[in-house]
Amino acid sequence: MGELLAMIREFNEARDWGKFHTPKNLAMALMVEAAELAEHFQWLTGEESCNLSQDKREKVADEIADVLIYLLNLSDRLAIDPVAAARAKIGKNGERYPAEKVAGKALKYSDYE
Amino acid sequence: MGELLAMIREFNEARDWGKFHTPKNLAMALMVEAAELAEHFQWLTGEESCNLSQDKREKVADEIADVLIYLLNLSDRLAIDPVAAARAKIGKNGERYPAEKVAGKALKYSDYE
Amino acid sequence: MGELLAMIREFNEARDWGKFHTPKNLAMALMVEAAELAEHFQWLTGEESCNLSQDKREKVADEIADVLIYLLNLSDRLAIDPVAAARAKIGKNGERYPAEKVAGKALKYSDYE
Amino acid sequence: MGELLAMIREFNEARDWGKFHTPKNLAMALMVEAAELAEHFQWLTGEESCNLSQDKREKVADEIADVLIYLLNLSDRLAIDPVAAARAKIGKNGERYPAEKVAGKALKYSDYE
Repeated sequence: MGELLAMIREFNEARDWGKFHTPKNLAMALMVEAAELAEHFQWLTGEESCNLSQDKREKVADEIADVLIYLLNLSDRLAIDPVAAARAKIGKNGERYPAEKVAGKALKYSDYE
Repeated sequence: MGELLAMIREFNEARDWGKFHTPKNLAMALMVEAAELAEHFQWLTGEESCNLSQDKREKVADEIADVLIYLLNLSDRLAIDPVAAARAKIGKNGERYPAEKVAGKALKYSDYE
Repeated sequence: MGELLAMIREFNEARDWGKFHTPKNLAMALMVEAAELAEHFQWLTGEESCNLSQDKREKVADEIADVLIYLLNLSDRLAIDPVAAARAKIGKNGERYPAEKVAGKALKYSDYE
Repeated sequence: MGELLAMIREFNEARDWGKFHTPKNLAMALMVEAAELAEHFQWLTGEESCNLSQDKREKVADEIADVLIYLLNLSDRLAIDPVAAARAKIGKNGERYPAEKVAGKALKYSDYE
């Protein structure tokens, strides 16, 4: 991850794109990339989405890459460590959705959402 | 990242949520989280988005966490390594947007988008 | 629709919110509302999504309302007639996806997407 | 609007696409289209977004059309009248954001958001 972030910084600096990369614009671009990722799944059934063709899987990997790149870029601009934030969030989620209450219960899931 | 992924897997298994986590549903949830992240920026100017209050910054960190968690979860279901995919994508982007052609040029940026 | 647009304009003017309503911000807000709408469906199966509870249906109607309000607001700012644009688009789509080629074919659908 | 909805129904029936058009899938597609609309604005300043080129404006009109088409399609499947829902929502919003409290106040806007 640290090495990836260094690659992203270097890429942006070489292109002088920092001026476009306000947190607002990066958050917007991240959402657009997440939509491009979701687009690959929109007409598939849940089951079909588990069995992607190799071609589709590569396209999906490309979109996952874009989401991660913008996420690291945005986090970097805000001096937020995304991995540390995710660990902390999982701790909070553990309290919000206690395993013994929500385990295996579809309805509970949406109640707690 | 590896440790974070282990935490995510354990969290989901303890709650038996795997059945909801088709790639289709995870891609949809990821997009929803990306929108919640963007929502914090929607009425801010670009400049304001660079100067978040501490309270806002914490909320944004929480949403960044959610996006990363769903991204790792989805990647895991598809057996895609998101960091490797991002490295490969930066290589492709380097060819698509040559630094000497697009550097510092706002118009070129959108031409190449 | 004309009457609805008049209500939206009056609502915004009474609150002096025009300054926040650049097309960029409205497009961002529209996307966020579309995500809030989608959130209601994210863990449902396709079949479940056809049989919403009355409570869920009302929440969904509220989000559909928000999407339409922002869509009319954005269109108004850009002096675009959304209904005329939609008619024109359906004409273009008719050429792009000829009924005799794509009718009833799931695979064709995604090929043509 | 009524005429537009009739065109949309006819278009879908001629292609036998109803089977793909669960509310879940339509909500997902709507969000994707909203993102394609937002994409046109992502690197623009607020001011630039008020002054689109004719070419860009036509592309934006096409995306507005797609959002409206999916919104009507989804509403139709759920037997929700989007215009009636929007009127009702504006009434609710009027109570939630009283003009005398929020008028012309940027901070109040986000407080109330």
